[in-house]
Amino acid sequence: MDRLIEAIRRTGNPSVVGLDPKPGLLPKQLLETVAGLDDLAQAYLVFNQAIIDSVSDLIPAVKPQIAMYEALGPAGVDVYARTCAYAQSKGLYVLGDVKRGDIGSTAQAYAAHLSGSPALPGLPSQDVWHEDAVTVNPYLGIDGIRPFLDACIQDDKDIFVLCKTSNPSSSQLQDLRTAGQSGAEDSAKTVSQEVAGLLEEWGKESQGNSGYSRLGAVIGATHPQLAQDFRRRMPRTFFLVPGYGAQGGTAADVAALFDGQGRGAIVNSSRGIIGAWKANPAYSEDLNRHQALDLLASSARKAVIVMKEDLTSILGRGGRKPDLVRQPASQDASSQSGYPTTDLIR
Amino acid sequence: MDRLIEAIRRTGNPSVVGLDPKPGLLPKQLLETVAGLDDLAQAYLVFNQAIIDSVSDLIPAVKPQIAMYEALGPAGVDVYARTCAYAQSKGLYVLGDVKRGDIGSTAQAYAAHLSGSPALPGLPSQDVWHEDAVTVNPYLGIDGIRPFLDACIQDDKDIFVLCKTSNPSSSQLQDLRTAGQSGAEDSAKTVSQEVAGLLEEWGKESQGNSGYSRLGAVIGATHPQLAQDFRRRMPRTFFLVPGYGAQGGTAADVAALFDGQGRGAIVNSSRGIIGAWKANPAYSEDLNRHQALDLLASSARKAVIVMKEDLTSILGRGGRKPDLVRQPASQDASSQSGYPTTDLIR
Repeated sequence: MDRLIEAIRRTGNPSVVGLDPKPGLLPKQLLETVAGLDDLAQAYLVFNQAIIDSVSDLIPAVKPQIAMYEALGPAGVDVYARTCAYAQSKGLYVLGDVKRGDIGSTAQAYAAHLSGSPALPGLPSQDVWHEDAVTVNPYLGIDGIRPFLDACIQDDKDIFVLCKTSNPSSSQLQDLRTAGQSGAEDSAKTVSQEVAGLLEEWGKESQGNSGYSRLGAVIGATHPQLAQDFRRRMPRTFFLVPGYGAQGGTAADVAALFDGQGRGAIVNSSRGIIGAWKANPAYSEDLNRHQALDLLASSARKAVIVMKEDLTSILGRGGRKPDLVRQPASQDASSQSGYPTTDLIR
Repeated sequence: MDRLIEAIRRTGNPSVVGLDPKPGLLPKQLLETVAGLDDLAQAYLVFNQAIIDSVSDLIPAVKPQIAMYEALGPAGVDVYARTCAYAQSKGLYVLGDVKRGDIGSTAQAYAAHLSGSPALPGLPSQDVWHEDAVTVNPYLGIDGIRPFLDACIQDDKDIFVLCKTSNPSSSQLQDLRTAGQSGAEDSAKTVSQEVAGLLEEWGKESQGNSGYSRLGAVIGATHPQLAQDFRRRMPRTFFLVPGYGAQGGTAADVAALFDGQGRGAIVNSSRGIIGAWKANPAYSEDLNRHQALDLLASSARKAVIVMKEDLTSILGRGGRKPDLVRQPASQDASSQSGYPTTDLIR
């Protein structure tokens, strides 16, 4: 997790941009020439590249959601991998939101997301997905985690395991109250609290210089009443926090997920950034393709800056901000004007 | 689920063949010309087609495990979809073992596995994955299930949701004992028993003529002591049963997962079928490519027949077999000799 933490320190920004394209999030100028799924996948790539080019100096990481690409079939999956490769080429940490989870040789195969394709005589292992981390589902226990964790340790990668998700029905399983051990001090935990304990334990062997392990947890922004408890239960577990913005989570809601140094969590926004152009009054269907790309890029940049300021302001209260405050602001000078001054579409 | 149940009735065989290729399961004759990942993916396709051609008249369904294909990157994923399409073209029900699980618009995107790609003006929705069913993870609750269930009802498809998996560490989450409702008759259920109750409930609206709903459950073969309890808790839920064979589950272990009519479950075997050629003394590295394909195909066919006889014999005891016994045996006459008489590689 140290690489991610360093990237957050460098940018002074504990947020990650979700690259989750779908037809309704693309301006019509990108869809006009689409005559097949290959074209639509290509339009996703152009869209993603415009966003990445526009914000890569402001953010530590992107989180492409593979489901959006899988919806287009294999052509979409190909563009998912190309999006990851492009983001890495711009220096971004790529968190592949794949939520995989299986056992034994199957989990081993999924771990290729991090460790590369199987090697054969004359055919060395290749990095086919270009991800620095992936999300994983815990339902199968350590059998589903071990191969990923081994890959993390061997190839300097990370995983984020679902613990308490941001959606309303996360309560159905994750909030089930367990019977606990009679007489134990901390009995009657919920399932997600039990998972928290497992994740903290499983991560132990991969603790880095930052104090955080390579095994992070997904904790939704929509449960502020639980935030402090999860932070306390998982002192060496870094949090990926979905649910900010479109799903209703606020900066105040996520503050307690950070540690006392203002570290320990990264907050995701997807629609709020990549769909920001929709709320920009300068958008019109009369714009040409280049103008539309320019506008969606500058809208995303502005939204990233607003989110960064929102998050860092709340971290400034209660002594939670030292690491972020210490950052030189030179590389995001454009944040003062809101919109950047240079042409964003390179 | 009615289509799958009819296919089981037609073949008299409640088993599904896992198409989970990996380099170690392919005879070296298929790997000799492999110089890149596209070639390796192509070798997987040739391997799968040989298996499918050899056993398609004997089995109702195949279950390709997408992880094995993802390990090769996008080139592998393309061959996954082509494997599914090929199996469907041979009349097989294709159960995509993808274990996806997410929420909201992301779950909606994953549901494209069943309902097809998003439609645009001039670009109708397309069946990009060629699956009749997929496996889904329950950790996120109904939010992660609803989009799949809607796709099932609209497009005559099914899902199988993880409930109690076959691996040892399934105990870590799935066997956690819940606190239950004080005074309730059935309090202190395990997490997987709670999930069982949810699945049975969620499936209710899609109950078919067979009595089973479109929402099935994954119940491992390796927990015989729990089988009867799960069958009782989920009377309208069809079971996909992994863990038979290589993982140690026997026909006796799975018997109680079937209902009183010998229906209600389908048992998976992967390595035991597609890797059967390795135990065939007729295999030699000196065989040419065609001979090796022929041998792996006939070995798979023999293994399918042995598995079918194993399962149907156990279902014959205790009055569990009526539906299967009633089947005419004409289409699997070759099962009497063990090996088929026709050339299997078409």
